[in-house]
Amino acid sequence: MAAPNGAPLGADSEPRRALRVALLGCGVVGTQVVRLLTQQRADLAARVGAPLELVGVAVRDLTIAREGVDPALLTTDAAGLVERADIVVEVMGGIEPARSLMLSAIAAGASVVTANKALLAADSPTLYAAAEAAGVDLYFEAAVAAAIPLVRPVRESLAGDRIKRILGIVNGTTNYVLDQMATEGLDLDLAVKQAQQLGYAEADPTADVGGYDAAAKAAILASLAFHTRVPLASVHREGITGITADDVAWAGRTGHVVKLLAIAERTDDGVSVRVHPALVPASHPLAGVHGAFNAVFVEAEAAGELMFYGRGAGGAPTASAIMGDVVSVARHRVLGGRGPVESKYADLPMLPASAAITRYQMRLDVADRPGVLSQVAAVLAGHGVSIEAVRQAPQPVGLDGEVAPAASLAHLIITTHAATDAALAATVAAIAELDSVTRVVSVLRVEGA
Amino acid sequence: MAAPNGAPLGADSEPRRALRVALLGCGVVGTQVVRLLTQQRADLAARVGAPLELVGVAVRDLTIAREGVDPALLTTDAAGLVERADIVVEVMGGIEPARSLMLSAIAAGASVVTANKALLAADSPTLYAAAEAAGVDLYFEAAVAAAIPLVRPVRESLAGDRIKRILGIVNGTTNYVLDQMATEGLDLDLAVKQAQQLGYAEADPTADVGGYDAAAKAAILASLAFHTRVPLASVHREGITGITADDVAWAGRTGHVVKLLAIAERTDDGVSVRVHPALVPASHPLAGVHGAFNAVFVEAEAAGELMFYGRGAGGAPTASAIMGDVVSVARHRVLGGRGPVESKYADLPMLPASAAITRYQMRLDVADRPGVLSQVAAVLAGHGVSIEAVRQAPQPVGLDGEVAPAASLAHLIITTHAATDAALAATVAAIAELDSVTRVVSVLRVEGA
Repeated sequence: MAAPNGAPLGADSEPRRALRVALLGCGVVGTQVVRLLTQQRADLAARVGAPLELVGVAVRDLTIAREGVDPALLTTDAAGLVERADIVVEVMGGIEPARSLMLSAIAAGASVVTANKALLAADSPTLYAAAEAAGVDLYFEAAVAAAIPLVRPVRESLAGDRIKRILGIVNGTTNYVLDQMATEGLDLDLAVKQAQQLGYAEADPTADVGGYDAAAKAAILASLAFHTRVPLASVHREGITGITADDVAWAGRTGHVVKLLAIAERTDDGVSVRVHPALVPASHPLAGVHGAFNAVFVEAEAAGELMFYGRGAGGAPTASAIMGDVVSVARHRVLGGRGPVESKYADLPMLPASAAITRYQMRLDVADRPGVLSQVAAVLAGHGVSIEAVRQAPQPVGLDGEVAPAASLAHLIITTHAATDAALAATVAAIAELDSVTRVVSVLRVEGA
Repeated sequence: MAAPNGAPLGADSEPRRALRVALLGCGVVGTQVVRLLTQQRADLAARVGAPLELVGVAVRDLTIAREGVDPALLTTDAAGLVERADIVVEVMGGIEPARSLMLSAIAAGASVVTANKALLAADSPTLYAAAEAAGVDLYFEAAVAAAIPLVRPVRESLAGDRIKRILGIVNGTTNYVLDQMATEGLDLDLAVKQAQQLGYAEADPTADVGGYDAAAKAAILASLAFHTRVPLASVHREGITGITADDVAWAGRTGHVVKLLAIAERTDDGVSVRVHPALVPASHPLAGVHGAFNAVFVEAEAAGELMFYGRGAGGAPTASAIMGDVVSVARHRVLGGRGPVESKYADLPMLPASAAITRYQMRLDVADRPGVLSQVAAVLAGHGVSIEAVRQAPQPVGLDGEVAPAASLAHLIITTHAATDAALAATVAAIAELDSVTRVVSVLRVEGA
């Protein structure tokens, strides 16, 4: 197409050619990107120094009506569209055809802005290398925690510091589900159904509930924070599928809240990245993160502890992050320069989950007779796991706190001091072997204490 | 001096000349900048693509020992030093000679990183214009809320969105003082003395206690957020000097906490920027910001509400922000490109403080007789100020809540619905004229409800 020409804008006196923006995908996020490009046209032109012109929107089905999107812009020819753009915004998701299209765009000289956490976690080296070879930008603020500025602070603001730890809630769906379980006493299935009805969870909730989405975000953040490639396979991942209403209720009784956490730590030995549900003390700021909100702590050597909080999902918040990136890459087109490239120089070793050191809370059904606690305590001591607190309760306890008639069992809630995952696993296996232990009901990590 | 040469580094195969860094000032922040430059030398070189070499540290007094700083680097010839640097880091503070030195550095082709909020608030246009003319970078993340990434998120991450409001605690000294008043029941003078003993407050605490420091930060943030020059003179500024132990105690009794807030709002009419103490509901996240910490809410049209939290002062946190900027400007030296320039295209009108609309809480000493409340309520209604809540208490009430014997007075605590500052001022003046009102004890804004 011919280069369209906008009014003179920016610091220069010359008229600037409009920058051609192509959008791949037009769902909840894409329509908001179109809205911002349209409604803030004049502001964006002034900030960039040249107008941004949406030249096309690639979709699979042309017949779906998309509010606020000019039907003339819609096309099913995504491959053709990326050839005639300066900036390609990818919000279609998934590995293919997103990767091929982005690589075509980069090869054709376009800068790419993407929200595709799954692709970045699976194969960012390929995209980085292509962008670097072509001298174009690859930006992806929206891939982690939507509107919350995290990618830029981690890879730019803290580039002169040494990040030690990232700990946060990066999946709004599971946070909503756990929140509903805690406040309404729902079980997991019902809370997930409710989240689906409200549009917070997909028809197939596996990516969220299974922790896959959070693991992808953890891999992306850890790569940036530690200047090391973090393959998705190195992220220890546990979802919330094993979390029961009983777990959530007992968490509350012991002054905790259950949260799905993403944790990336740098130790003397390397990098540990994991996603799992954990008990967080009720007094910790993360315990107060409700509904579909996200919050992430970043701890750096000089900066100390920082927290970032906001909407981690949704069309408009995700579009906000995308448009911030669009302005950055567009400014590079106008003024020259490029954003950060892949930083992997540190190349730190990945540590297995078994090396992670955390506190634990385990709940056991045990025989209601003297000496059981001392037996269990002896097993813990024998494995070098130190006890911080023990609580005994009649068992079973209903969710309303009333004691049911079954009598000869007791419930033991043990919180340990910090121990390795490996030591804890061996301990739990040994405890399960004890005659007096009927069942290991649950074992949950305790974080943020 | 001859350009020193480092080992080959970065993506290119050519050896890179080291980038020469000059430091102006070597106090609490400067020594931490030197420490990070030294301890993270290898990391910084890898991230920048070239080594950073500290070529000199300008100080006033060569005889003061500075831990970890090579005495051979110290010089009193700041003007000479800036001539031989690629990057000048200014942490001396104050208007002059900081401004002249930075302008000389820029004229000599150096990029500038500064933490100087007073100078930026007073005269950023001069610095911006010089940097733009010379094609060099002017970065200042450390000028607002130290380690907390705020400048970059506001001017880059949210550049594709429309910021509506910024509200936060940006002065750690006053936050510490107010926190001590609330938790220890101290009066202002004593809390300030304590802050001075702990190094949180200067010998002359005026800049902090008077709200000048917060006003400078508010002006900087508002300029960035609203793409409009915000002169310091347009910032309505009230410090905490009028806040009494009684105010803090009554805030607590009515479910509030007193905080010094910086607020920048965009309305249909223009921009309102103000710094003043305010009552914040105890349930609001800002109420939980203790000690010398800072926290800032940013509300944008698409992103919704974001919060940033962390250490807003101190040597290491400030140095962290500075070093992030140093890496950015250094990367531009190596890879080309430039950071954001001044964005003032929106040129929105500044609104007077009298146009600001907030809720208020006023405390009155009144005659303890029937009909007084109705008189006061009539005055409020006559000025169009609507009452949200009224509380009557015997007066005077000691800090321990006990009623002292003085009998014929009562204490009236009135919380209003939102009203303009102007309407409230007129209302208060009229109330003070009432025979039944002995004294208007205090009038405080209520924010964050």
